[in-house]
Amino acid sequence: MTKKIRAGLWGFGRAGKAVAGELLAHQDFDLQWVIKKHPPRTIRYASQAFHREEDKAPVYCEKDLSSDFYKNFPVDIIIDFSDAGSYKRYAEAVQSGIKIISAISNLSEPALATLKLHAQHTAILYSPNITVGINFLMIASSLFQKIVPHADIEIVEEHFREKEDTSGTALKIAKSLGLDNHKHVNSIRVGGIVGKHEVIFGLKNQTIRLVHESINKAAFGQGAIFAAKWLIDQPAGFYTMEEILMERMRQQLSLMETHVAT
Amino acid sequence: MTKKIRAGLWGFGRAGKAVAGELLAHQDFDLQWVIKKHPPRTIRYASQAFHREEDKAPVYCEKDLSSDFYKNFPVDIIIDFSDAGSYKRYAEAVQSGIKIISAISNLSEPALATLKLHAQHTAILYSPNITVGINFLMIASSLFQKIVPHADIEIVEEHFREKEDTSGTALKIAKSLGLDNHKHVNSIRVGGIVGKHEVIFGLKNQTIRLVHESINKAAFGQGAIFAAKWLIDQPAGFYTMEEILMERMRQQLSLMETHVAT
Amino acid sequence: MTKKIRAGLWGFGRAGKAVAGELLAHQDFDLQWVIKKHPPRTIRYASQAFHREEDKAPVYCEKDLSSDFYKNFPVDIIIDFSDAGSYKRYAEAVQSGIKIISAISNLSEPALATLKLHAQHTAILYSPNITVGINFLMIASSLFQKIVPHADIEIVEEHFREKEDTSGTALKIAKSLGLDNHKHVNSIRVGGIVGKHEVIFGLKNQTIRLVHESINKAAFGQGAIFAAKWLIDQPAGFYTMEEILMERMRQQLSLMETHVAT
Amino acid sequence: MTKKIRAGLWGFGRAGKAVAGELLAHQDFDLQWVIKKHPPRTIRYASQAFHREEDKAPVYCEKDLSSDFYKNFPVDIIIDFSDAGSYKRYAEAVQSGIKIISAISNLSEPALATLKLHAQHTAILYSPNITVGINFLMIASSLFQKIVPHADIEIVEEHFREKEDTSGTALKIAKSLGLDNHKHVNSIRVGGIVGKHEVIFGLKNQTIRLVHESINKAAFGQGAIFAAKWLIDQPAGFYTMEEILMERMRQQLSLMETHVAT
Repeated sequence: MTKKIRAGLWGFGRAGKAVAGELLAHQDFDLQWVIKKHPPRTIRYASQAFHREEDKAPVYCEKDLSSDFYKNFPVDIIIDFSDAGSYKRYAEAVQSGIKIISAISNLSEPALATLKLHAQHTAILYSPNITVGINFLMIASSLFQKIVPHADIEIVEEHFREKEDTSGTALKIAKSLGLDNHKHVNSIRVGGIVGKHEVIFGLKNQTIRLVHESINKAAFGQGAIFAAKWLIDQPAGFYTMEEILMERMRQQLSLMETHVAT
Repeated sequence: MTKKIRAGLWGFGRAGKAVAGELLAHQDFDLQWVIKKHPPRTIRYASQAFHREEDKAPVYCEKDLSSDFYKNFPVDIIIDFSDAGSYKRYAEAVQSGIKIISAISNLSEPALATLKLHAQHTAILYSPNITVGINFLMIASSLFQKIVPHADIEIVEEHFREKEDTSGTALKIAKSLGLDNHKHVNSIRVGGIVGKHEVIFGLKNQTIRLVHESINKAAFGQGAIFAAKWLIDQPAGFYTMEEILMERMRQQLSLMETHVAT
Repeated sequence: MTKKIRAGLWGFGRAGKAVAGELLAHQDFDLQWVIKKHPPRTIRYASQAFHREEDKAPVYCEKDLSSDFYKNFPVDIIIDFSDAGSYKRYAEAVQSGIKIISAISNLSEPALATLKLHAQHTAILYSPNITVGINFLMIASSLFQKIVPHADIEIVEEHFREKEDTSGTALKIAKSLGLDNHKHVNSIRVGGIVGKHEVIFGLKNQTIRLVHESINKAAFGQGAIFAAKWLIDQPAGFYTMEEILMERMRQQLSLMETHVAT
Repeated sequence: MTKKIRAGLWGFGRAGKAVAGELLAHQDFDLQWVIKKHPPRTIRYASQAFHREEDKAPVYCEKDLSSDFYKNFPVDIIIDFSDAGSYKRYAEAVQSGIKIISAISNLSEPALATLKLHAQHTAILYSPNITVGINFLMIASSLFQKIVPHADIEIVEEHFREKEDTSGTALKIAKSLGLDNHKHVNSIRVGGIVGKHEVIFGLKNQTIRLVHESINKAAFGQGAIFAAKWLIDQPAGFYTMEEILMERMRQQLSLMETHVAT
């Protein structure tokens, strides 16, 4: 029997809560605790948000992160869905040899530089779009562009009406395809659409569409689990979700055979 | 200046004609002739079907394929869009060292065996679905399945009302994904839809769709051109369109870097 | 200032709860109470399921429906999202002049007969698919079919993998279009898709698609609110959601002008 | 047996040619002649463009439209797919009592004023988007907007890369929905997409999409036939394709019954 991965979760907002739910439900993980910004009022255990019978994963707050926190409450990996400033509190976890997954959107350059410094001592994975689907979409789109460089490309992203900015994921796809996002990213804002990204490749005689639709935020939890299972076996270094997928794709491509009807 | 590829085309039905149009218009190709089943009546040159000013690419018929045809009318490559029995007439072209692209649907086992025998002497590529888009869709789908093996998969194919059988492309996708086509291929037959294939991957919290839409049959010509440019530099051997794409994908994946926002 | 509509809700499962949330949040409605099958254990007020500050809408159970329940806890309208047997408990509400919206799926013939009998005394609306979008889709599809009777039609419905039966909505659309559902309804079951219905009209030179995507069950609440606002002003009689929409469409069509660019 | 409708066609460009093909193939129509701008060189009969055995529908040019042209070559209806200035040559056809369908895009105000003057003497129908599908899409979208006025609406139109301007159809849809086209029309230009228009209605809990895809220009011919069959029985007056569809929708709505599962 393999040992479960002991995980700690930073952040208990909408995304963080969804991730906690996935970690609590997964047989390969043991969620040890959750860190909130402010002291918890009503919910003392993450499990209480999911109407589970036994209490699991006590909720602490940032102030509780004293110098011996990780000795008292050891984990193998920290999954961070908190906020843009959290990287400033990574040092002690790094010194304790804990691996870190940062799923924070739009990290600043100093933040990224800090992550890369820490990555000399432990395995750190950074992914602002930590779903398998979106990362696959991004890599598959890049591949198609490389193979058929004369294809026209447009990106359409659809989200709920209140979302003000262009989707960060769409911007990242545009960047990875070398497209001017002001010209080639089309944003649709209507009703309550959770999130849809479509990359359209137009050739003279055929059209290819790669489409990703989010159903709910638990997709982040699934992505974090996918990343954590991989990161747990890695040496110190700075990694991304894209790299994991690209590595898997390389492996699979070398194994795949063609399907001639014989 | 590179020398143009001298091509001969077998088959001048709807697909063949579209392929001829693409070859005539492409700067890297010189269409030498077209072979029809029966003697041509009205059209003496393939160019006449495209309202071009000068006469190009005379149209011959199967009977004209005498023993010295290829000496009198030499080509570098034959592109075959004719019919399931054409493979029986490959021997002389093979002996003349001509490379062959067969784009015939549903070749029989004896036909494939013959192709593979000939492939000991010249480069032969077989692809019943010779569009870049469909082959990319097929490989990308296989990759996603390998990376996320627990995803549910369904295939939807839409075509014009008169198309009776399940799309051969959909069957091939199903086979390459290990899916029972009776359960997982959904055929829509309405109006005049040229051809649409969609592979749907369903996860608990996200859906990924890979979609290919055909606009017209000239896509086959573009695919044949893509394949011919590659095959022209290959040694004797049996190849498929999938292999070309998989090779390209491997190359590109090894070159690609991840796009961390730094 | 208009008086609020006093509503009672039967059923507090997944759909019922979502409907309660919409009713509690709507300014034109005053949710008086909710009836569950069994006595409530943890939740005493519907509002508690939505983390609202003040307690609103006490939760009762079927046994509490004594002969003077409606005298003690009067409402203008009952919205029923409970179960297929609930119609047997309508008599006293009908005698009290309360209007009823039944959103129960697949009511039996005796149930429908009972509803129609009661409809001689009060206004009753029955709709197993009580969303504005689905009902619009259904009527618009019928209209297009009537105008272009030679169009080919196919229905595609997509739902989460666990949904076993063909979607009742898809069956109803098929029936209203006179289509054999065994031939023309295509069911896709993958991952966690909440619910998507697509009606495809194929003509020789064009394709028309009417598509409805559900984001979550609160759509039922919005539909019930739409229906209740209309029903509250109606005399005794048996009504359907389709009729409301058809009436609105007739009204609007008679008001609409064409948009010639002058 | 009903008498065939004798039609004359103005315009023999890409759209005009497609319309001629549909008229030649339709059992209820007898295409008498086609008028081109300049004298025909190669093609003397419209039928020659469709490889038909017998010669049908001689091709004349604008200069041939002498004062007694309609006496020598009488028709019941003129279908005009020529150009923005053609309205200046309507007077003699109007005096001969011939009905007119104008399918010219973006007619100027003076042109429309002239059409309306002529409409006092004969039946004239003007439609810049003469397909049943697009007009249905437009009216259905207006209806849905009227019924659910708080829905967010976006329009997406996709066309081949060379199409420079925003689709006139998309602009018309935007106008008919009261939307600022600079904000709510999204134009995708890639590859060879023939033409796709999508109206997206977003509500908090559901999304409705009305989609029209063009396969080829013969759709205009089908639309012209639909319009001509209707116009042939109308008295003098100015009509639009939208009006025909709205009238049909009103008729059908008054006949339709709801489908309660009894």
